[in-house]
Parts: sequence; C-alpha cells; structure tokens
Amino acid sequence: MLIILQHMKTHPTPRTRVRRVADNAAYDTATLYAIIDDAYVCHIAFSDGSNDGSAPHCIPTACWREGGHLYIHGSNGSRMLKRLAESEACVTITHVDGLVMARSAFNHSMNYRSAMVYGQFEAVEGDAKRRTMEAFMEQLLPGRQAQVRGGSDKEYAATTVMRISLEEAACKVRSGGPQDDAEDMSIDTWTGVLPLQRVRAAPIPAEGAGAAPAYVQQWQHGAE
Amino acid sequence: MLIILQHMKTHPTPRTRVRRVADNAAYDTATLYAIIDDAYVCHIAFSDGSNDGSAPHCIPTACWREGGHLYIHGSNGSRMLKRLAESEACVTITHVDGLVMARSAFNHSMNYRSAMVYGQFEAVEGDAKRRTMEAFMEQLLPGRQAQVRGGSDKEYAATTVMRISLEEAACKVRSGGPQDDAEDMSIDTWTGVLPLQRVRAAPIPAEGAGAAPAYVQQWQHGAE
Repeated sequence: MLIILQHMKTHPTPRTRVRRVADNAAYDTATLYAIIDDAYVCHIAFSDGSNDGSAPHCIPTACWREGGHLYIHGSNGSRMLKRLAESEACVTITHVDGLVMARSAFNHSMNYRSAMVYGQFEAVEGDAKRRTMEAFMEQLLPGRQAQVRGGSDKEYAATTVMRISLEEAACKVRSGGPQDDAEDMSIDTWTGVLPLQRVRAAPIPAEGAGAAPAYVQQWQHGAE
Repeated sequence: MLIILQHMKTHPTPRTRVRRVADNAAYDTATLYAIIDDAYVCHIAFSDGSNDGSAPHCIPTACWREGGHLYIHGSNGSRMLKRLAESEACVTITHVDGLVMARSAFNHSMNYRSAMVYGQFEAVEGDAKRRTMEAFMEQLLPGRQAQVRGGSDKEYAATTVMRISLEEAACKVRSGGPQDDAEDMSIDTWTGVLPLQRVRAAPIPAEGAGAAPAYVQQWQHGAE
C-alpha cells in the first residue's frame, strides 16, 4: 500500500495559530500523527448551514488515519456526513494524561495531548472506500479482517466514507510537573502529577464465541 | 451548599433528538450527570461569528458540574470564552468503553457513552465564581483546597468562569456485546467486547514535594 505523507503547513494559518499558552503549541507532523493514531474517536464541529446564529454541532465518531488524511465513516443517512460534504469542519482529538498538582490553586493544571484539524471533508468512493475500511479494521485488530464476513456490496453502498486532509492542523501538548510561582515555593504541600491512562481490560466473550485469536488473547496486556 | 437540580426537557428538542441509531438515545438526567461527572474535559463547538461559512471551532477544556449546570473556566483573554458570551454552543463529552467484535466487518462497533448539551453559556461572577472554582478543586481532590494557596483577588480577576444549563441535552450510550445478523451466526470466529478503561497510575512527585496526603496515596487504587 502506497502511503503519501502530506505535511502540515510549516507556518500556522490564522485559525490554527495557538493563542492560549502558545508555548504548548506544536505544529509538527510526527506529533499530530501520534495524537491521531492514539485515538479511537474524534469530535467534529460543523454548522447546520442555517446561518441564523444557532449553535454548531459537536459529534463524536470513530476515526482512523492513512497517510496525510483522517478518515471517518457512517450511514448514508447521517446528517453530519451530508453536512460535511458541503461545509468546512473542525476535527479535534484530546487525550487527558494526568492532573498536575501545584502549590497554588491557580497553578493546578492537566497534562494532555490535543490535535485540531480544519478543512473540508471529501467523499471516498469505490475501491478506495473498500480498501480504507479494511485498513481501518487491520489497524485496530491485525488479522481480524480475514476472520469475519467482509462487507457486502449492499453494506458498502449504504455506507459513506469521508476523509479530511491533515495539512491545516495544530497540536497542543502539556506534559511534566507543575510550574509554581517563585513566591509559593515555601508552601509545604505535595506537588507532582497524578497520571491517568487508558488501558485494555479483560476480553468479554459473547455467547457462542469461537476460539480467541492472538489479538484477543494478548489484548489485556498489549501496549495501549 | 444548596444544589438545585434542573431537569432536562422530557421531550427532545429538534436539535437534541438523536437521529442515528435512536435506540441508543437516552434523555434522562441521571445518565447525563453520570457521563459528565466521569469526564475531566469536554469539547465545545462554537462559531467564530463571521457568518462566512467558515468552520466552527472545536476546543477541549476542563469541565465540572454543579447541579444542573456544566462549568468551564479560562483566562479572560480566551477567544473561546469571549465568543461563548455572545453565541450558542454545543458541548460534547465522550467516553469510549470498548471495541465490539462481531461476525461481520460491518457489525463491528464501539461501546461508548456520550452527552451533548446545547445552549448559551453565561458568566459566573463574584462570590459564585470563587465558590464554584473551589468546588471544582474539591470534586477533583477532596481536601486539597485547604492544602494550597487559594486564588488571589488578582488571579480571580484574570479568570473567566462560565456555565451552561444542562436542560437541553441528549445522551447516546452503547453497551453490551455484538448484534450479529441471523445469517452470519454460523461463522466460527471470536466475538465479544475488548474493553477499554481509564485508570489512575502511580503518582509522580515533583522535586521538593511535601508529604503525600490521602488522595495522593490512594490515587492509584481509587475507583476511576
């Protein structure tokens, strides 16, 4: 499979320039890809097109990456997918890594990794649709695609796959311990990080499940 | 502290009526509050007000709940907080609970809990601002507020706290095992759920940290 890496704009655009705590901003591709690849879902903000000042929508959906694009899928009937074909969107992924405990209430913080992508989704059709859906499964669970019934023509026809370029994007990352004010350093209290992690728990077989393949047997102890 | 519970509209509004896989929809307050209370951050979709068809923004931020409102805070200089004072927003929280493995590729799914709230944020001022920021800390880490330097007048003056009513909201929850098509039941493959969980990892003390209080000692083994 040929993957062509597209690179983010070296200089942020007006809407990807990070304004708050700009020291936490990162615009490099490796950081962006790692944040996306660690995510099962993204949140997509899109307008309903009424232009009447009503709220945009923010909907979570499963996502995967191939090369320089982020992919999503859904039913042809999805309001979100119909709207995304017509207007610009913002896709955001956030991982919370821990609570940061400082000597003053206001210097408390969180460690996190977040990515924002702006642009317009485009439909993925035909063979490319089938190929990337299979790649999605293969990324989640290598080997599973061959152990299940693949998508039928009818199932593919009822499904919309869309992708957005990762070219206009920005990341924001905070890691490490607290940053206390100099005048607070004499306060005697515990400071540091209380980490949060996503882990894999023991598989729960369904009634009538067949033998567990390697990716199920190793699920709980795999790197997450 | 008096907490007045506000209840979600019994009947969904046009924008909170769940369209896709409506069987997963829930509109009850207990479900909504549990999803919010399990979150450290929410994603907020808001428009930049230009009305030129450009993308709305989707920004993650820390959140907490008191009674029938969701609260956020940030610097007075935050673009998002300025915009939220002027226009409607959509706040979404999503927890991914596991991968659902079925006998066909298209019946694979994810277990998740998500909540969407629509409305307009309002500023929280004066004593209420101070009180809810302290409540936020107390919810995260009971007892910590008394062990750190509290917010100064200057710090509070530089901080904006906003809240949104939880009255117009909807939840979507999927749990349990796969739902296979009847004609796929003879396929011999492993099916079930591969769970994902958020856990607390070992605290990382900063250099010069004081003695660990109970909420730090018990962090790693606390319920999450």
